[in-house]
Amino acid sequence: MPKRVLIQLDCDPQPGTFDAVVAVDAGADVLLRQGGVTPENVVPLVHGAMFTRGGSDLASTAIFIGGGDVAAAEAVAAEVRKTFFGPVRVGVLVDPSGANTTAAAAVVSAARHVDFATGAVSAVVLGGTGPVGQRVARLLAGKGVHVMLASRSLSRAEEAVARLHEQVAAATIEAVASAAGGEAASPFSRGVANADVIVAAGAAGVTLLDAAGRAAAGKARVLIDLNAVPPAGIAGVAAADKARADGAAVCYGPLGVGGLKMKIHRAAVERIFTDSAAFLDAEDLLAIGASLG
Amino acid sequence: MPKRVLIQLDCDPQPGTFDAVVAVDAGADVLLRQGGVTPENVVPLVHGAMFTRGGSDLASTAIFIGGGDVAAAEAVAAEVRKTFFGPVRVGVLVDPSGANTTAAAAVVSAARHVDFATGAVSAVVLGGTGPVGQRVARLLAGKGVHVMLASRSLSRAEEAVARLHEQVAAATIEAVASAAGGEAASPFSRGVANADVIVAAGAAGVTLLDAAGRAAAGKARVLIDLNAVPPAGIAGVAAADKARADGAAVCYGPLGVGGLKMKIHRAAVERIFTDSAAFLDAEDLLAIGASLG
Amino acid sequence: MPKRVLIQLDCDPQPGTFDAVVAVDAGADVLLRQGGVTPENVVPLVHGAMFTRGGSDLASTAIFIGGGDVAAAEAVAAEVRKTFFGPVRVGVLVDPSGANTTAAAAVVSAARHVDFATGAVSAVVLGGTGPVGQRVARLLAGKGVHVMLASRSLSRAEEAVARLHEQVAAATIEAVASAAGGEAASPFSRGVANADVIVAAGAAGVTLLDAAGRAAAGKARVLIDLNAVPPAGIAGVAAADKARADGAAVCYGPLGVGGLKMKIHRAAVERIFTDSAAFLDAEDLLAIGASLG
Repeated sequence: MPKRVLIQLDCDPQPGTFDAVVAVDAGADVLLRQGGVTPENVVPLVHGAMFTRGGSDLASTAIFIGGGDVAAAEAVAAEVRKTFFGPVRVGVLVDPSGANTTAAAAVVSAARHVDFATGAVSAVVLGGTGPVGQRVARLLAGKGVHVMLASRSLSRAEEAVARLHEQVAAATIEAVASAAGGEAASPFSRGVANADVIVAAGAAGVTLLDAAGRAAAGKARVLIDLNAVPPAGIAGVAAADKARADGAAVCYGPLGVGGLKMKIHRAAVERIFTDSAAFLDAEDLLAIGASLG
Repeated sequence: MPKRVLIQLDCDPQPGTFDAVVAVDAGADVLLRQGGVTPENVVPLVHGAMFTRGGSDLASTAIFIGGGDVAAAEAVAAEVRKTFFGPVRVGVLVDPSGANTTAAAAVVSAARHVDFATGAVSAVVLGGTGPVGQRVARLLAGKGVHVMLASRSLSRAEEAVARLHEQVAAATIEAVASAAGGEAASPFSRGVANADVIVAAGAAGVTLLDAAGRAAAGKARVLIDLNAVPPAGIAGVAAADKARADGAAVCYGPLGVGGLKMKIHRAAVERIFTDSAAFLDAEDLLAIGASLG
Repeated sequence: MPKRVLIQLDCDPQPGTFDAVVAVDAGADVLLRQGGVTPENVVPLVHGAMFTRGGSDLASTAIFIGGGDVAAAEAVAAEVRKTFFGPVRVGVLVDPSGANTTAAAAVVSAARHVDFATGAVSAVVLGGTGPVGQRVARLLAGKGVHVMLASRSLSRAEEAVARLHEQVAAATIEAVASAAGGEAASPFSRGVANADVIVAAGAAGVTLLDAAGRAAAGKARVLIDLNAVPPAGIAGVAAADKARADGAAVCYGPLGVGGLKMKIHRAAVERIFTDSAAFLDAEDLLAIGASLG
């Protein structure tokens, strides 16, 4: 069997190291890392995957689409899909910045403690305009959760919500500004007070819910902080927390979610190297995560 | 023995994936991929090959020169050759876009059915200004074949022919415009009608000889289509054709030629990793291909 | 144990091949090569090292900082150091263009024949403004040697000396212009005549001390030429010289020093993959070299 070659298509000028290390650990033998990938220059890169190995060997080539810009990665993914024809295709995993695998792991973790099927679940996604935040919001909304997508910039939150409403039929996602002070009467404060699930998915090293905010989250049953750089994104959540009880809530930190994220990523890479028809986006990864438990 | 390190010098802004996957399958352990390589910036990259391993270990480093621009690759190849001195050199394979190995495989395939040595063989190369087309024309002309190099743009065809006449002594290559309609009286139509060998080497997914054109190629004994993206470059030739009889002619599709191309490529990579003096260009690859049968 | 991933941060637009081949031979399983790295864009590349592997697996990731510009590499190294926190860090080797390992090997070689501890040793570093030359000067000065840093451009020599005086407490480094003719009365000629140690660390293929200059170096006990491209940097020193006696002096050529340089490099890579706290700069590499003998 030929070596497993993973073509890493990164929309950032520099191909990322994060996605690369994870790909190595997920079983890729050879990485072909491409930075600055756009819909305009991606076609020959895809042809290089399609036309170099014949027959069953084709399955040993796969494509990973990454980078920090979710919208750019989606545009590249759409172009990759169009370039394939008939059986001349390779497995694809779309996971910019690990956003889809991380979001899937966060939502699977939350689902252990909250029953989304009731249709009465509320969630706040802090740092909701980033790669991970957008996908957490999309996956929760796809499960029927009412989602409040919070960002320090209301206009950026509104843009993200508009994009998400195009992607998820019948979703209810609301944009709010997460004011630093957080007056009790603000929509953000009301959202935090009423949320069953709070997920912090903001930039590294930024506290998005401080101790007062945490105390105000009186109905929260699950608190998930995905930020690995101190200080914590949610005050009181430690990096290694994994379903640690804190009052009526359970807490997950980035390492507590990270184990499942890595399992999802590995299973996804295994899938794209065995099923050339696989084209794995956030929802597929959520399904993989759910099957892993 | 140290790992086999192949330095991929690519003249395109992005180092290509095609050349990289083939290099992996040809036995390189480590690829060092460099995009945007020019004669101006290549010298330190070559020094990195020359001065890192001593003695017999030097043979475990080799250089591959690729990319979509044949002229740029040739300029880089000339600079690489100048940078070496005495025994301080590594094996080099010049194969932009797989053009040399593909062209060599096509010409070896044609030679199974047509005796070039008679000096009375005519060939038409469709899409003759591209990387593969130029090399097919050069290799055929080097074997004494009268070659008609066709392109939709007559001026681009003429430029390519002028370059080829500089490279091959005593070559007879003629430039023609391959009009889409194809009036019966055009030089192109006459060339197709008289050709013993027709090779389509154009862009992916473009038909260069339609059904009427194919029917008009009454003297053709070999039809080779190197385009792997539907529709076929020559109407009626299937991707997997390998010496399939079609009237008086035999047909080869991209997969039918591809097996031999890959064998040539592998043998060439094996050569540059065992013979530091090897500097393999199209004609060397043709000789390798002929020896492989 | 996971694969050893070495992230090669290169400040040049093209990541270098020299550093890469050496890294492969030093035991890295996977190279993630990044070109055009700056203090501004390096942080996410470092986060990719810090946050992808947990626990003891973290030690299987390490960072190499290279490229041709010593000052740029130092700025990136400073930013990398700042990005780490607590135990969330990986081993780092700072070795732009192999300058630190080469300089360390040259100084260890010289120390076999000259006792720096007397405090009365004089050295001339030819081509002293380049990556290797600057580090040789710094390491010698750090050992109490009086160093004359020579360059064809006096102003560039003075700039380099100013930087070195910031880095090494109590160093005595003097800048001189190495005139091609070399009048007997010039500071450069006096320096050569009085030097115990002469190291040529200039550009490839440039003679920095011709036969007359070599003859004038009457007190020299060690002559080290680090240039591997003919003609020699110091007339009469052959590439393979390794403590070859030439009158009262011993000579080392690039290959004679190269064996120790490679041993230092390998030991350093081994160190950064086993000690996440290691942050190896020129002085650490000198210590490693001294321990290797």
